[in-house]
Amino acid sequence: MQKVGFIGLGLMGEPMAANVARAGFPLTVYNRSIEKVKSLVELGAKPAASPKEVAELSDVVVTMLSDMTAVQAILEGEDGLLSGAAEGMTLIDMSTVSPDQSRATAAYLKQNGVSMLDAPVYGSTGPARDGTLGIMVGGDRELFEAQRELLGTMGKNIFYMGEQGSGATVKLCFNLMVAGQVISLAEAMILAGKAGLDLQQVGEVITSSGINSNLIERKVANIVADDYAPAFPLKHMHKDLGLMVNAAIDLDASLPTTAVTHQLYTAARASGYADEDFAAVFKILAAMAGLDKS
Amino acid sequence: MQKVGFIGLGLMGEPMAANVARAGFPLTVYNRSIEKVKSLVELGAKPAASPKEVAELSDVVVTMLSDMTAVQAILEGEDGLLSGAAEGMTLIDMSTVSPDQSRATAAYLKQNGVSMLDAPVYGSTGPARDGTLGIMVGGDRELFEAQRELLGTMGKNIFYMGEQGSGATVKLCFNLMVAGQVISLAEAMILAGKAGLDLQQVGEVITSSGINSNLIERKVANIVADDYAPAFPLKHMHKDLGLMVNAAIDLDASLPTTAVTHQLYTAARASGYADEDFAAVFKILAAMAGLDKS
Amino acid sequence: MQKVGFIGLGLMGEPMAANVARAGFPLTVYNRSIEKVKSLVELGAKPAASPKEVAELSDVVVTMLSDMTAVQAILEGEDGLLSGAAEGMTLIDMSTVSPDQSRATAAYLKQNGVSMLDAPVYGSTGPARDGTLGIMVGGDRELFEAQRELLGTMGKNIFYMGEQGSGATVKLCFNLMVAGQVISLAEAMILAGKAGLDLQQVGEVITSSGINSNLIERKVANIVADDYAPAFPLKHMHKDLGLMVNAAIDLDASLPTTAVTHQLYTAARASGYADEDFAAVFKILAAMAGLDKS
Amino acid sequence: MQKVGFIGLGLMGEPMAANVARAGFPLTVYNRSIEKVKSLVELGAKPAASPKEVAELSDVVVTMLSDMTAVQAILEGEDGLLSGAAEGMTLIDMSTVSPDQSRATAAYLKQNGVSMLDAPVYGSTGPARDGTLGIMVGGDRELFEAQRELLGTMGKNIFYMGEQGSGATVKLCFNLMVAGQVISLAEAMILAGKAGLDLQQVGEVITSSGINSNLIERKVANIVADDYAPAFPLKHMHKDLGLMVNAAIDLDASLPTTAVTHQLYTAARASGYADEDFAAVFKILAAMAGLDKS
Repeated sequence: MQKVGFIGLGLMGEPMAANVARAGFPLTVYNRSIEKVKSLVELGAKPAASPKEVAELSDVVVTMLSDMTAVQAILEGEDGLLSGAAEGMTLIDMSTVSPDQSRATAAYLKQNGVSMLDAPVYGSTGPARDGTLGIMVGGDRELFEAQRELLGTMGKNIFYMGEQGSGATVKLCFNLMVAGQVISLAEAMILAGKAGLDLQQVGEVITSSGINSNLIERKVANIVADDYAPAFPLKHMHKDLGLMVNAAIDLDASLPTTAVTHQLYTAARASGYADEDFAAVFKILAAMAGLDKS
Repeated sequence: MQKVGFIGLGLMGEPMAANVARAGFPLTVYNRSIEKVKSLVELGAKPAASPKEVAELSDVVVTMLSDMTAVQAILEGEDGLLSGAAEGMTLIDMSTVSPDQSRATAAYLKQNGVSMLDAPVYGSTGPARDGTLGIMVGGDRELFEAQRELLGTMGKNIFYMGEQGSGATVKLCFNLMVAGQVISLAEAMILAGKAGLDLQQVGEVITSSGINSNLIERKVANIVADDYAPAFPLKHMHKDLGLMVNAAIDLDASLPTTAVTHQLYTAARASGYADEDFAAVFKILAAMAGLDKS
Repeated sequence: MQKVGFIGLGLMGEPMAANVARAGFPLTVYNRSIEKVKSLVELGAKPAASPKEVAELSDVVVTMLSDMTAVQAILEGEDGLLSGAAEGMTLIDMSTVSPDQSRATAAYLKQNGVSMLDAPVYGSTGPARDGTLGIMVGGDRELFEAQRELLGTMGKNIFYMGEQGSGATVKLCFNLMVAGQVISLAEAMILAGKAGLDLQQVGEVITSSGINSNLIERKVANIVADDYAPAFPLKHMHKDLGLMVNAAIDLDASLPTTAVTHQLYTAARASGYADEDFAAVFKILAAMAGLDKS
Repeated sequence: MQKVGFIGLGLMGEPMAANVARAGFPLTVYNRSIEKVKSLVELGAKPAASPKEVAELSDVVVTMLSDMTAVQAILEGEDGLLSGAAEGMTLIDMSTVSPDQSRATAAYLKQNGVSMLDAPVYGSTGPARDGTLGIMVGGDRELFEAQRELLGTMGKNIFYMGEQGSGATVKLCFNLMVAGQVISLAEAMILAGKAGLDLQQVGEVITSSGINSNLIERKVANIVADDYAPAFPLKHMHKDLGLMVNAAIDLDASLPTTAVTHQLYTAARASGYADEDFAAVFKILAAMAGLDKS
C-alpha cells in the first residue's frame, strides 16, 4: 500500500484527508496553520513539519490549495516539496487552477522527476466528508489507473478526461455552469421581485420543477433568506471566472454570457461581497434594479 | 360538476384536455384543425364548430395557445368565444404570454362579464400526458379555489401566485432560468470542445453532479448527439425571451445576461435554427468559436 | 408657397418652427401648452386652437413630438388632425419613433387621404436654432422632393433614405451609435478613475485625438464636471434603446453590445437618473465599480 | 544634446525615429530585421548590431515594440540592452502594454540603474510621419520634463499622466473607446443592413454629423467598401482588449460592454479575421445576423 502525503487541510482538504486515513493508507499531513492537523493525527496520520518532510515520507502527495500561487509556494524552497521528493514520486493536485498553470507545473515537476495528475473536484463540504466527491482527472492514463484506489477513498464519480490539464479544463467548464445557473436564478428573482411577487413562493415553483438541482435548491434558500453565509466565497468564484475567460480567449472560444457574468461578479466584489457566498451576486443585481428586499 | 371547454389541442393541449375528460368533466373541445379533435371525441368529448359554440356549452373554458394573438383571435368575431359566453363564465388561459397582455385581456373580458385566470404551465409533453404539470396561477383567489379541482386534473404542483398576471410573470421568470441554464451549458461545452475534450465525457461529468437537473440531462443529450429534434422550438424560446426583456424594461429590472442570451438566440434564429430545439443555440456559439463538431 | 402647420413646440420644435416662419412660409402652430406659442406668433405665425384647425389651414403639417403615443393623440378625436385634413394633405413626422409604428401610421393616414414622410432629425437645440439639423427622410420620393424646400429651412444635411420608415430606421441606427459612444466613454472613465487617474486629464487626452467628436466633447464635459443637466434626458435615450432592440429583433439582427447598453441604461433609470442627461449612465457604472468621485 | 537610441522600426517606429533624426538628435537605431534600418541611416542615424550596442551609445533609448514579450526580449541576454546600459540611462517605452507589466519592467530596470517612462501613443502612421502623435506619459515628473523635447519631436499633444504605469493605463482607456466606437458603428450598420438600407447612404448620414470623428470616418469607409486592409490588425485590438479586461478586473472595475466587445473580437479572430483591420469585427456580426453583403 503506497504511502500518502496530504497538503492543504482547509474546509475541503481536511475531510478528504480523513477519508484517506480511514481507508488505511499510511498518511502524512501538512498544513500552514498547525491547528488543522489535530483531527487527522487522531485518525492516525503523522504530522509533518514541512512540505519537504511530507515528500520524504510519501510515494504520492495530494495537494488541495486555494490557487496556483499556493501550490507553487509549497513546491519551492529549502523546506519545499521538491527538495524532499524522491525520483518517481507522484503529485495529485486537486486545486482549481487554470489548465495552462497546471500543464506548466506538471512540466516543471517532470524535469524534477515527479509525475503529476491534475484532479480537481466538484462537490462541497458534505460530499467531501462522505467521500462522494466528483473527481476529474488529467494526465497519464497509467498513472491515473495506479491512483484510482486512492482517489476512490475521496470521491464516488471519478472521470479520466485525458491528457495533462484536462481535469483543470473540465473543472472550469463545470464552474462556468455553476456561475451561469446562479446568475440566471438571480436575474429571475430580480424580475419576480420587481413584479411584486413573493420570492419564497417563486422559489417553491422553481424547486418543484425540472430545472431544480442540488445547486439551485441551496441558492434559492440563500436568496429567499437573504443569508449569504459562504459555502463558496464570491471572491473564489470571481477568480474562477477569470480563469475561464482567459482560458477561453487562449482557445478562441467566445463566451458572451460568461463574460457578462464575470463583470457582474466584479461589481459584486467591488461592492463588498467578496467574502459572502457567491449567490450574493443577487445583491448587485438588486442594487442595479433599485430593488429593496426589506 | 361544471361543464368545461378546451380550445387549443396542440402538443400540450391535447393530452391536457384528455386528462380533463378522463376525470369525468363534461367536455367540449375546439381546435383550428379538426383532426386533433378525434382522440378527444373517443374519450367522450363533444366537438364544437367554433369558439362561440364552446362558450355556449361551457361554464369554464381553458385556452392553450401559442401566443396572445392566437388567444385574441378565438375571442373575437361572429364565431368568437365572447359572442357565446354567458355572464359569469370563467376563462383559464394557460398560454405563455406577457403579464401586460394577460392583464389587458382579463380587463377586457371583465367588461364582457367573463372572469379570467392566467395559468401557464411548466413541464413538457410527458408531464402533460401524466397530469403532472406545474401550474402557476394569477387572478382572483376565490376564482382560483373554485377551479382548483379542474386544474388538478392537469397538474400536480399548483401554485396560486397572486393578482392577475402573476402566473404569466412567474412563467417568464421560469423560462428565463431555462434559457439561462441552457446557454451556460452551451458555453461550457464550447470551452470543452475548443480544449479538445470529448463532449460525451464532459456530459457525464455534468449529469453525475449537483448541477444536473431534468432539463440539463435532456439538453446534454441534444448537444452530445448533435440532435435537435424540437421538444421546445428555438423560435418559441426566442419569443419568450422577448417577452421577458420587455417585461423587465417596464419594471426597471436590469437583466444583463438575459439580454445577451436573447441576442444569441436572435443570432441562432437568423442562422436558420428557428424550428430546431432551443438547445441549438449551441450551434451559433460553435460557429462563433470556429468549432467544427464533425 | 404652401401653407405649413407645425405641431409640437418643445425644445426642438419651437426653434424649428421659427425657422419655417422666418423663411416666409405661411405658418399655423399648435402646442398642448399654449405658452410656447407666443414666440412664434411674434414671428407672424397663426395660433390654432386644435390640431384640427392646424389641418384646416395647412397643405403640409410638421409634427415634432415625444413618441408615437403623442403623435396618435393629435391625429384622433373630434379636434384631431384627421378631422380637419383635406384630401391630399401631407404630414411630415419628425419625431423619433419605431419604423414599424411609422409605417403603420403612414398606412392609416393613407386610408384617410393624407400622405406622410417620416423625417426624424439629428442634432440638438443649437442646430435646431441655426437651421443646421440633419434630416433623414423615408417615404415617397416625389413627395420628398416636393417638401425639400420646407425641410431645407430646418436642416442643412437632408438625406432621402428610401421607402416609408427608412428615416425612422436610420435615426435608430444613429442613436445606437450615440448610446454606444457614450457607454464606451463611460467605461473608459471608470477604468481611468479606478486606476487613480485624473478624469479631467484623461478627458483632455480623448478630446485632443482622432476619437473626439462633437458628441464626445460634450459628454466628457458632463462626466468631468459631474454635471448632468439634460441636453437629452436619459429616459429618452432609454426609450430609444428599447425601440432599437425591438426593431433589431424583428429584423433578426443580433446586437449584443447594444443590448447590454440598454440594460445599463435600465439600471441608471432604476437608480433615479431618468431626468438627467443620458451621460449619467456613467453614475451607474461608477456605483458598480465602487468608485466614489468626490 | 542627449544621445538617443531607437529600437523597433515597424510601421510606427520607423517614421517616429526619422523625426528624432531630423530634429538633430544623435541617433543610433536597431531593428530585428536589418532592412528597416536603411532609411534612417540615410537620415544620419548610426545602425547598431544589437540592443546592447544601442545602449552603449545612448543616454536615452526609445522602444516601440508589439508587446511586452518583445520588450523583454531586447532587454535580456548577452546582447541585450541591459548588458550595455550605463548607470543613469533612461528607457522610454512607447509600446502598448499592460500597466502591471509596465510597472514591473520599470521596477526591474530600476534595480539595474535604468530609469523608465511609459509613453504609449495614439494616432496611426500618418501622425507618426507628421510628428503629430499624442503621447501619454507615466513615471517620474522630472524625468518626463527632461525628455519633453525628445518626445516633442514625435508628438504634438504630450500628456504627463502621473506615476509609473499611468501612460499605459490611459492608452488602454483610449483603445477601449476605439473598440467601443467601432463596435457600435458595426452594430448600427448591421441594423441598417438588415432593414434593407444602403450602407453608403447611412455612412454619409453618420459622417455628416456630430458623432463623426476621424476614426469613424475611416471605419465607415472600411465597412462600406468591404475592404479591411489593416491600419490596425484585429489581432492587436483583440490583444489590447484582453489587457483592458484584465486590468479592469484587478482594479475592481466592471466593464460590461467592453467585455462583450472582447468576446465579439474573439469570435472574429476565431473566424479568420485576425490579420484584417479591426473594423472586420463587422463581419462576425454580419454572420450572426445572416446578413449577406453581396
